[in-house]
Amino acid sequence: MADFPARTEIGVTTGPIRGSRKIHVGPLKVAMRAIDLDPSCIEPPLNVYDTSGPYTDPNAHIDIMAGLPALRRSWIEARGDVGSYDARHLKPEDNGQLGPDRSGGVQPFPNVIRRPLRAKAGANVSQMHYARRGIITPEMEYVATRENLGRAQMMDHVRDGESFGASIPDFVTPEFVRDEVARGRAIIPNNINHPESEPMAIGRNFLVKINANIGNSAVASNVAAEVDKLVWSIRWGADTVMDLSTGRNIHDTREWIIRNSPVPIGTVPIYQALEKVGGVAEDLTWEIFRDTLIEQAEQGVDYFTIHAGVRLAYIPMTAKRVTGIVSRGGSIMAKWCLSHHRESFLYERFDEITEIMKAYDIAYSLGDGLRPGSIADANDEAQFSELYTLGELTHRAWKSDVQVMIEGPGHVPMHKIKENMDKQLQVCGEAPFYTLGPLTTDIAPGYDHITSGIGAAMIGWYGTAMLCYVTPKEHLGLPARDDVKTGVVTYKLAAHAADLAKGHPAAKMRDDALSRARFEFRWRDQFNLSLDPDTAESYHDQTLPAEGAKTAHFCSMCGPKFCSMKITAEVREFAAKQNQPADGFIAAGGPTGAETAAASKAAALKGMAEMSEMFREKGGEVYLAVEG
Amino acid sequence: MADFPARTEIGVTTGPIRGSRKIHVGPLKVAMRAIDLDPSCIEPPLNVYDTSGPYTDPNAHIDIMAGLPALRRSWIEARGDVGSYDARHLKPEDNGQLGPDRSGGVQPFPNVIRRPLRAKAGANVSQMHYARRGIITPEMEYVATRENLGRAQMMDHVRDGESFGASIPDFVTPEFVRDEVARGRAIIPNNINHPESEPMAIGRNFLVKINANIGNSAVASNVAAEVDKLVWSIRWGADTVMDLSTGRNIHDTREWIIRNSPVPIGTVPIYQALEKVGGVAEDLTWEIFRDTLIEQAEQGVDYFTIHAGVRLAYIPMTAKRVTGIVSRGGSIMAKWCLSHHRESFLYERFDEITEIMKAYDIAYSLGDGLRPGSIADANDEAQFSELYTLGELTHRAWKSDVQVMIEGPGHVPMHKIKENMDKQLQVCGEAPFYTLGPLTTDIAPGYDHITSGIGAAMIGWYGTAMLCYVTPKEHLGLPARDDVKTGVVTYKLAAHAADLAKGHPAAKMRDDALSRARFEFRWRDQFNLSLDPDTAESYHDQTLPAEGAKTAHFCSMCGPKFCSMKITAEVREFAAKQNQPADGFIAAGGPTGAETAAASKAAALKGMAEMSEMFREKGGEVYLAVEG
Repeated sequence: MADFPARTEIGVTTGPIRGSRKIHVGPLKVAMRAIDLDPSCIEPPLNVYDTSGPYTDPNAHIDIMAGLPALRRSWIEARGDVGSYDARHLKPEDNGQLGPDRSGGVQPFPNVIRRPLRAKAGANVSQMHYARRGIITPEMEYVATRENLGRAQMMDHVRDGESFGASIPDFVTPEFVRDEVARGRAIIPNNINHPESEPMAIGRNFLVKINANIGNSAVASNVAAEVDKLVWSIRWGADTVMDLSTGRNIHDTREWIIRNSPVPIGTVPIYQALEKVGGVAEDLTWEIFRDTLIEQAEQGVDYFTIHAGVRLAYIPMTAKRVTGIVSRGGSIMAKWCLSHHRESFLYERFDEITEIMKAYDIAYSLGDGLRPGSIADANDEAQFSELYTLGELTHRAWKSDVQVMIEGPGHVPMHKIKENMDKQLQVCGEAPFYTLGPLTTDIAPGYDHITSGIGAAMIGWYGTAMLCYVTPKEHLGLPARDDVKTGVVTYKLAAHAADLAKGHPAAKMRDDALSRARFEFRWRDQFNLSLDPDTAESYHDQTLPAEGAKTAHFCSMCGPKFCSMKITAEVREFAAKQNQPADGFIAAGGPTGAETAAASKAAALKGMAEMSEMFREKGGEVYLAVEG
Repeated sequence: MADFPARTEIGVTTGPIRGSRKIHVGPLKVAMRAIDLDPSCIEPPLNVYDTSGPYTDPNAHIDIMAGLPALRRSWIEARGDVGSYDARHLKPEDNGQLGPDRSGGVQPFPNVIRRPLRAKAGANVSQMHYARRGIITPEMEYVATRENLGRAQMMDHVRDGESFGASIPDFVTPEFVRDEVARGRAIIPNNINHPESEPMAIGRNFLVKINANIGNSAVASNVAAEVDKLVWSIRWGADTVMDLSTGRNIHDTREWIIRNSPVPIGTVPIYQALEKVGGVAEDLTWEIFRDTLIEQAEQGVDYFTIHAGVRLAYIPMTAKRVTGIVSRGGSIMAKWCLSHHRESFLYERFDEITEIMKAYDIAYSLGDGLRPGSIADANDEAQFSELYTLGELTHRAWKSDVQVMIEGPGHVPMHKIKENMDKQLQVCGEAPFYTLGPLTTDIAPGYDHITSGIGAAMIGWYGTAMLCYVTPKEHLGLPARDDVKTGVVTYKLAAHAADLAKGHPAAKMRDDALSRARFEFRWRDQFNLSLDPDTAESYHDQTLPAEGAKTAHFCSMCGPKFCSMKITAEVREFAAKQNQPADGFIAAGGPTGAETAAASKAAALKGMAEMSEMFREKGGEVYLAVEG
């Protein structure tokens, strides 16, 4: 063991999120965060969805060298349909042959499993397969508990939202999860070789999820930085993480990431396959690609982006575009197809890929290799032709009970967003949509987390199940740690805005709790209930750093004398003291409609004087403490 | 003059915006920015809307102590309907009586005009009044030229957008501007005592505008910082600026701001009136308020927020809200009404206020004092009751030919945004809507420029004419310089996304130009065409700082070997070399629909082999330079 790097070489952020307590709910010990509120408000703790895994649990022992505990292993083994076997041998090209070492001095993961799991001959271990046979798996139960946050408390509330035909239940039962997975409307991506993952669902009738991309590139990054970004991105709310590494050290980077990830990991296998042929797309073969799928399946990748919709016939449709083909996977396949003038081997071998997927329970993320890369190219023939093919492939995968989601654009102006969603739902049989943004304008590089956050919130509202984040560095460079956080929080708020608008039963609880805290000047509660308590508190402190300002009944915007919140407290107090309904109040004084007739005016004035006197008597001048 | 502070005490940012050239178009010398592109692309310079005034003109002499040149003075005087008079005397209370001096050591503006202008007895100097009499003013001509950016080039393009019933013309004529102002669908806010302003229009059929708020508060800021923020915010695109100062030094701060502002300045006069009565809302009187209006009218404020819709009868409707009344102006008036148990003097004296507005051409910004301050309170009875009253007041102001816009929320979940727009258009006769965000969730303090940027883009698309920015410090503290820039750029991109979605004839030109630059690796052009060239370039340089990387035909995301843009160039090249339409290409090779019949398969394979050979012959392996 002396050869392994010192632990500090892979440093990650641990410890509770400010103001939150890790809790584990139900028999499956589903991880959540509880936010305790100030005793003055007499409100119960608010439980929130938590993607951060054991890293934010002060009672967990974190050892990056060992990886996370295998939460799901016993569930997988108990089903009796898997067997272990000797793993494919690691080849030199798995870690790339070209360019500089980008391991950052980090050695291979110490405890690689040499005997991965695979479905027994003839078996299908996908969650969809179980679901269709009526089996409720522990994964489905876990998801149900996880998604049910606060719904029990909200059962008596009137739903308020526009879900565009979604079927969001008041309460999520394991049976509901099973049914959604069975009909393909949701997926639970979890490779049997990634037992460390905490099950989660991606589907239109569940909370909107977000994905963060990390990964080495051919010019920058190193393994330790990527593991740190993984832990950092799930701390702030990433529901899944894609490892988009290219260049060298791909295999080892991925091993470190998967072994330490409590969230599903996605990849684009064609990236690694391309490295194996020295970056020459024409030299790709089905055999190399297939071998790469096995390699990654054995490591535990939970979903594969497969650009099988980039068919030869669609490629010329991109020639007149402003930005042609912008998907890396799409352009690799386009080059292959053109060079050989043959149909894509991904399309032709799709059923063979499906056989691999079902043996490990890997979900398809059918890639949008022809997505528009600019406003000008949105919703064009190439894009929608590919989408139709993705619909065809969805149904083909479903015949083998393999889970599918569909990737979507890209760059789309607001008025063309809904058409994307509507077509996807129709063509792909409501398989979960997984979109990148979309960016609603091209003119703000440096702010593309926002140009795309707008589109993401909207398409999430319309029905997209998972939003792939965009960082401020999009189009410009590789995201650093801060950019990852900004991207994740931006997408988390967009996803939440979508949940609110869809009328998700319990989404509003957090907004309301935070707004009550705001109104009652519970500053700490306001920070703790926010998506990013650290930033909220630091912004507050930039203007009023003193500790006393966190309990002050005013803020820096208006100062102590000039506070609308305080005046509202008086209005409320006054209304309460009157102990009469609003219409009585109105009758006593103010005109209700157009002009008050002269006759009633005298009476009104008398009433006004009385009410005025009452207000002064009852403490009109005193700022009443809101807790009082 | 020896007493005045050294010039450095009010330092502002001057000099061209990176990559832009100031130009002045037409007989009125309308200021715009031209962005020159790399000669390789053979594209003309792109002209963009410019709010930055003389500060970005290297040929302008900037002297903060003297203020800007009076562009409009001759236009105003030429109309022959104004006269000068002795200004109201400055009173000690105009600069506040309480709290610490917050001038930052800056003395009063040196050259205060002691003889302001006012309409002659019986005259009405509002742009609406001229418009309704069929007069096209230079202000209207200026607006027409300013709004026409690029439309001549786009005349032959097919419009693409969904404008929800707006009437955006292909080309803006001065007569169109006149007509829009006459019917109240647009305003041109410019007080005759603010001749330094460059005319601009706020209306649903013009480009969507944005406002930035600045101003001293009772606990922080100083005069120099606020003047600097003014210049900084217009540099990045603020179309109007509101001075929301409270506390001391209000009068002097405003004088510095107006004299140095090329954009319309708005205020909330009740803030200053409250300072004059020591912060005790009950002590406000019509006389003090009226005197404050005159004071600000003489200084040149272009629009007043007047919360005349906060009627006594509506106040109890807020008692059951989660966050009550969050508007400062609204809560001041609520307190006054409750305390006196009388109808609001703003409502009762509305026609008297209108008389002042028309004597100086000040526009109403009818305040939404009962706007929702949380998701829970959106679209409630209090909010819409006030909106109906604002509609009533709009029509009343229009009877006197006074310009009006309507302020809107606030905090609104996505599914309730459009109702706001629809009601406003209906009730207020299409008077311009001017909204704060709205924020689409409450749970992201520190990121409320984004939670609100989502709502702003959407409501701008639906028809809102001006979006009031929100900075990252919203709810937490006072925005610093960086926050102002972030807020402005965020809102600028939201406004542009709205223009795109509405199908604004020329909005897409900038997106397309930037996307072409992106596709052709013209990095400098990509930076220069963006809303914030400085940030775009600095983000790029964080990964690839070398100068060579700015002409490199790759970027840090994929590196030199792995670039989708390059592969697309090959696709395009290949398609061009074939010199045949896409359908011919398809016929030669790829299957077009479902399964290819066995019979045609042999022929297809033969075609594929031929095409493959052609690709290789014609340079399939070589990365062809895109300029080549």
